[in-house]
Amino acid sequence: AANIDSQTSHKTIELPGLVSISTYVPTFETETAASDVEAVTKAALAAGFTFTSISPVTESGSFIVDARTLTRAHELSQGSTYTDFSFGVAATESNPTQIQHVSSLTSSLLVRSEEFLKNKLASTSAHFGVWPERKPIVTDTKTTDLASVLLLASLYSRQIHVTGVTSKDDLALITMSKSKGLQVTCDVSVYTLFLSQEEYPGATFLPTKEDQKALWDNIESIDCFSIGQVPSLLAKFVGKPAVPGAGISDTLPLLISAVAENKLTFDDIVAKLHDNPIKIFNLRDNESVIEINVDRATSSLKNTKQQWSPFAPNQLKGAVERVHMNGQTVCLEGEFVVAEALGRENAFFVQHPSALTATPSAQEAQLA
Amino acid sequence: AANIDSQTSHKTIELPGLVSISTYVPTFETETAASDVEAVTKAALAAGFTFTSISPVTESGSFIVDARTLTRAHELSQGSTYTDFSFGVAATESNPTQIQHVSSLTSSLLVRSEEFLKNKLASTSAHFGVWPERKPIVTDTKTTDLASVLLLASLYSRQIHVTGVTSKDDLALITMSKSKGLQVTCDVSVYTLFLSQEEYPGATFLPTKEDQKALWDNIESIDCFSIGQVPSLLAKFVGKPAVPGAGISDTLPLLISAVAENKLTFDDIVAKLHDNPIKIFNLRDNESVIEINVDRATSSLKNTKQQWSPFAPNQLKGAVERVHMNGQTVCLEGEFVVAEALGRENAFFVQHPSALTATPSAQEAQLA
Ligand SMILES: [Zn+2]
Ligand SMILES: [Zn+2]
Ligand SMILES: [Zn+2]
Ligand SMILES: [Zn+2]
Ligand SMILES: [Zn+2]
Ligand SMILES: [Zn+2]
Ligand SMILES: [Zn+2]
Ligand SMILES: [Zn+2]
Repeated sequence: AANIDSQTSHKTIELPGLVSISTYVPTFETETAASDVEAVTKAALAAGFTFTSISPVTESGSFIVDARTLTRAHELSQGSTYTDFSFGVAATESNPTQIQHVSSLTSSLLVRSEEFLKNKLASTSAHFGVWPERKPIVTDTKTTDLASVLLLASLYSRQIHVTGVTSKDDLALITMSKSKGLQVTCDVSVYTLFLSQEEYPGATFLPTKEDQKALWDNIESIDCFSIGQVPSLLAKFVGKPAVPGAGISDTLPLLISAVAENKLTFDDIVAKLHDNPIKIFNLRDNESVIEINVDRATSSLKNTKQQWSPFAPNQLKGAVERVHMNGQTVCLEGEFVVAEALGRENAFFVQHPSALTATPSAQEAQLA
Repeated sequence: AANIDSQTSHKTIELPGLVSISTYVPTFETETAASDVEAVTKAALAAGFTFTSISPVTESGSFIVDARTLTRAHELSQGSTYTDFSFGVAATESNPTQIQHVSSLTSSLLVRSEEFLKNKLASTSAHFGVWPERKPIVTDTKTTDLASVLLLASLYSRQIHVTGVTSKDDLALITMSKSKGLQVTCDVSVYTLFLSQEEYPGATFLPTKEDQKALWDNIESIDCFSIGQVPSLLAKFVGKPAVPGAGISDTLPLLISAVAENKLTFDDIVAKLHDNPIKIFNLRDNESVIEINVDRATSSLKNTKQQWSPFAPNQLKGAVERVHMNGQTVCLEGEFVVAEALGRENAFFVQHPSALTATPSAQEAQLA
């Protein structure tokens, strides 16, 4: 069981297994999907994440959108998922009816900025109408589109989580809405706390320096930290290949560097990467534990691949020495000490405990 | 007392005195204001309107914004107002505190698109916080800004009235919000039901032909008709002088032409220009009656001034032959048969019955 002693300052600390609420698998719809899921969840586990909520969006756009594509995602992930996991489903112009059939099998509904622009309020309103009240709707919309989505959440009394906040104004809108009783929460991608448009002019997916400062100044208003798509977007922006799992191993070391600078506490990290995600996304706590040597460079671990990162190797300290999950040590010194992928589906267990055995794809096809 | 027999089809009909919920006085802040108020309210009375809610906005922008400017508006209107009347107050970036002092003396708070763009949500949110729950907030915002204002109305449980709707999408958003329990109502300017960007290319304050069709198709979702600023904007657009009272005399004849074409009923006119405005703006019903000869050209009346209008004189039938208000006939065959302006302030009577006597400006100055 988890035994957190994050208050003390000795070199090795124990934290509960981290939760990634937005894990991006770039090529889910292709033949390499299974190996991508494996690569992403292995990177996540080695980096301290014992749970990953897999985004329904790939490089090509919305992928998990109905029972058929959800079943396909299950098939591709079967035996390839090293962390516990759940799937989200994406809202599209044409799928409010399909959404009903998969809402009990997914952890959240994603209302994307891109789709929202096309569909306007009418279609998105239909999604809010059919989505269950007690499961979060996640959105990456910004500015006035965000206000529109919050309006829908308010009118339909739905729980809304804003992912990847990058601006002061959006955070103020969220905070104000929360203070008036709206069930709204939010996250920032960890990269956006450390990188800005000042270092990468033209990278509009990053905050301005001023907005970044506002995120830090209001860090207590931010419910969760996420990884999201920002590391992949940045790799693409600078002309590097976006490998599956980009940015995941940087996440915890970056936050630990902020603890060293007294900008965060370990309690903040636990709250925003474990407690709050579990509460907001109604996840089963898998009671995992990770051991971190806060002074040791992550590059010293055995699994280290040569991936491009915007951060210098010696900047990133906080090596995850052990990951203990589902009753056993699964990762030691960066190496996997289990023979197979042991990840269990979370929302799946919660909603239909018996269905993962035998032939899930056949069973789920009935739901379409 | 009003005796409505709008169901029958004889030439002369009686309707209750009409309510103008958005009456534009172009030059309120100048020396000619008193004569402008007189010209506008005389035009309104002759055209069948026995109540006018005077807009806090002039050609130069927001005018009634605090106790001082409201007192000034009272002084200018004193003895010049031929209809019963009330004043609105406009939200600006700097006046949420002042708004508190005048909310009981005004009929509504106007959140203008132009100001909203400058102030964003923070300042407007402050206005919603101080404005009374039982008085409408009026807004002319559109598209995503409208969604933001509706969000504020939802979060603050405030009554919101959207004025001058011109698009299908905005009407759909309003209708959806109303169906989910938001206290939202709306009006369209009568000009926008009869004129479009097809006839006036580039006049973006008019609807497209497609949007205009949607307004007619959903006419039952529109709570009120208004006059608003559209006639003045159109005059300016075609290079004609915008005289005080532009468009007022066209309003009822245009609607009567729609009755003749079976696109409206007289009951619709009474609902949208009398019953609903009184209910929404919490007005005292002044029990006035107007008599209209539906087949007679308005140009045959004695008061007819040569104003520019986009409509041919013979198009406009429905002459208001008599206006009976506050216990007497005040207008007969287009001529005023009273020696002085008898208009009474409505919100004023409701909220502080004794204050209009003696020296209102001195009394109101205390409130600032
Ligand atoms: Zn254990
Ligand atoms: Zn310890
Ligand atoms: Zn499934
Ligand atoms: Zn835990
Ligand atoms: Zn009478
Ligand atoms: Zn009659
Ligand atoms: Zn007054
Ligand atoms: Zn009446």
